[in-house]
Amino acid sequence: MERPPHVVIIGGGFGGLYAAQSLKHAPVRVTVLDRRNFHLFQPLLYQVATGELSPANIATPLRGVLKRQKNAAVLLAEVIDVDVPNRRVVLSDGEIEYDTLILATGTRHHYFGNDQWETLAPGLKTIEDAIEIRRRILLAFEAAERASSPDKVRAWLTFVVVGAGPTGVELAGALAEISHETLTDEFKQINPANASIVLVEAAARVLPPYPPTLSAKAAAALARLGVTVWTDAIVTDVQADAVIIRRGGRSESITTRTVLWAAGVQASPLGRVLASATGVEVDQAGRVMVSPDLSLPGHPEIFVIGDLAHFSHQTGMPLPGVAPVAMQQGRYVADLLQSKLRGNTAPPFHYTDRGSMATIGRGAAVADLGRLHLSGFFAWLTWLFIHLLNLVQFDSRILVLTQWGWKYLTRNRAARLITGKSPLPFDR
Amino acid sequence: MERPPHVVIIGGGFGGLYAAQSLKHAPVRVTVLDRRNFHLFQPLLYQVATGELSPANIATPLRGVLKRQKNAAVLLAEVIDVDVPNRRVVLSDGEIEYDTLILATGTRHHYFGNDQWETLAPGLKTIEDAIEIRRRILLAFEAAERASSPDKVRAWLTFVVVGAGPTGVELAGALAEISHETLTDEFKQINPANASIVLVEAAARVLPPYPPTLSAKAAAALARLGVTVWTDAIVTDVQADAVIIRRGGRSESITTRTVLWAAGVQASPLGRVLASATGVEVDQAGRVMVSPDLSLPGHPEIFVIGDLAHFSHQTGMPLPGVAPVAMQQGRYVADLLQSKLRGNTAPPFHYTDRGSMATIGRGAAVADLGRLHLSGFFAWLTWLFIHLLNLVQFDSRILVLTQWGWKYLTRNRAARLITGKSPLPFDR
Repeated sequence: MERPPHVVIIGGGFGGLYAAQSLKHAPVRVTVLDRRNFHLFQPLLYQVATGELSPANIATPLRGVLKRQKNAAVLLAEVIDVDVPNRRVVLSDGEIEYDTLILATGTRHHYFGNDQWETLAPGLKTIEDAIEIRRRILLAFEAAERASSPDKVRAWLTFVVVGAGPTGVELAGALAEISHETLTDEFKQINPANASIVLVEAAARVLPPYPPTLSAKAAAALARLGVTVWTDAIVTDVQADAVIIRRGGRSESITTRTVLWAAGVQASPLGRVLASATGVEVDQAGRVMVSPDLSLPGHPEIFVIGDLAHFSHQTGMPLPGVAPVAMQQGRYVADLLQSKLRGNTAPPFHYTDRGSMATIGRGAAVADLGRLHLSGFFAWLTWLFIHLLNLVQFDSRILVLTQWGWKYLTRNRAARLITGKSPLPFDR
Repeated sequence: MERPPHVVIIGGGFGGLYAAQSLKHAPVRVTVLDRRNFHLFQPLLYQVATGELSPANIATPLRGVLKRQKNAAVLLAEVIDVDVPNRRVVLSDGEIEYDTLILATGTRHHYFGNDQWETLAPGLKTIEDAIEIRRRILLAFEAAERASSPDKVRAWLTFVVVGAGPTGVELAGALAEISHETLTDEFKQINPANASIVLVEAAARVLPPYPPTLSAKAAAALARLGVTVWTDAIVTDVQADAVIIRRGGRSESITTRTVLWAAGVQASPLGRVLASATGVEVDQAGRVMVSPDLSLPGHPEIFVIGDLAHFSHQTGMPLPGVAPVAMQQGRYVADLLQSKLRGNTAPPFHYTDRGSMATIGRGAAVADLGRLHLSGFFAWLTWLFIHLLNLVQFDSRILVLTQWGWKYLTRNRAARLITGKSPLPFDR
């Protein structure tokens, strides 16, 4: 008997995982390759970075998710190249043959040619990023408590978030909560509520991809929380104790010890690797220009999905890098493969946009659900509900709900741990 | 008006925290210094190392614990010396004056002169230790799944735990559960249940400080879980892929990629620093020989408590390094200070031993409660209850109970994340 065809999926994020799960009843062998042993629920990563949830609340072991799926295997492996002519994935420690390849390796943050900013202004894409940002935020208050001069206190208590997309808005909102609520009464020398939180955005308004009315509501909610929003403002330099910003033709400097980067993303390097091997185009962000069926032009056996794919056939604009796009694309490719195996064809991929949302601190959010624009407490409840439903494991849902409920009632954040490399001695 | 006397407490573990809290109504200023911003519930650290709990479940921010205590301040600081004549604590970035000093800096693991073993056989004292051990355990199964030969599979699936005190017994029991229950059906190439877990103990029986009948019960429970116990066995070398053990006059080698160290502890270096400054004695493990009232001989203004103290006035034997001793000593010193402030004297410290216990996997434990020796399921329930009660924060208790309940029902461990430095490429 012939062995069933081998579908190799690189990346266990929303796209890869949903593709694997949608192949459950297909007559194929599925192998999911990932450098990490877990699926990460990235939309809640900022809650780990701000001490509200623990990493394990939003990360689920891939093996656990796929254990009941007889035709799926998981391998912890790093992919360094794809040998397209021979249909092999090249690992850092071996090779794997495929009949069909699905690339879903996502994005990393992007410093627009200023990679030296990365250590000064960490971005938020991995669990390690989140723990490092948490470390810096909490440490800033500790250092301020022990600082030797009012200037140093001010520098430690100034937080600059670069980029006012959903992640930047959520981070800034959470920072405002930490300083105004969570840390109340915990310090003797400083008042955490004096912290200054500046959200810097290059575009003309916060949440640029959202409708202008929701951007305005988000800006108002941020202002109520005490966040200073600078729009039309471009970061021109990040230094150890300052950020330089160009705004209205003038250059301004903010003295700060904590800069967080939420400004841009770039596709995983595997996109360019694949493109240079096959002559397929990538866009400026390194995303692979895919065919209407998400395959690589000229290579019907290779698909690119999720944040790594540039799909603009539907509206002329590339689809946004959000979980629903990746999930729908994962399911689409799985269905397409099954149609092909039955000798049928399939229509091109079509994204059904059910809307997007962002939270701004405790009890406020904005949601753009197509014709329905929500804001305030009801939008926030909707946000809670949808995110909770989408957490992969049931026990995560219980734990996250408990943690959210507790935090909502007490304004306490349980996961406020400074871990990793020792922060001592301070610059006092 | 005179400022109230300043009590400086170094270390926010059980001893330091209980001393600080017991001084709540005393006419003193309390400052707690710690290198970490949290109190760690060390007895449950092995559950973090084995993916059952998250770090934040067993670590509580010190500022949160003490926020309602008006006379207490917390400072994140590293103590490098004590200037006894001038009553100052020397920090890595400053100095702090004290009227009374309470040293409660605990212990680190100890390799008996073989410090080069530390990277090969990590011990379990900090959150970072636990995450590193978790990383190694989970990684071993991943590497076994991808190993290129049966010999390599066997080496990756062999786990050696050195030291059969409570921590070693608990680690070995949890490892047996992981391989026989948690990971069932999650791998395609290997059977995790084939993992071999060896617990090596230099003494003649497991849990040497417990009564022999309980040691026998613990050994039987470990055997039921499939743990191989070697007693009267001394580790003579730890290598990258083997442990060398001397047993019955013979030298034996176990091929393994994962060695965990639970064999010995040594007092924090601050004990020796203080001893050499004051001429006070330390024991072989670096613990400070204290007076019957836990003060430093000749220095009634300095107290040493918890694991750092050698107190043998009661039975001729030093008290064990367990949380109840530290908690009682913390309270005792706080009460003593208050008596002194009122011009009274106090009786010497007296430890009330309420017993000790250890768990051996799911649903089994041994407890030595003085005349009452428990084992099996009832001992395990007692263990759960006592540990849950002693978790400092209420929300931790809810979350830990949820997590334990979930794990007990489903045999799943939620916090199975490989984080930190990338483990790839493997030695396949």
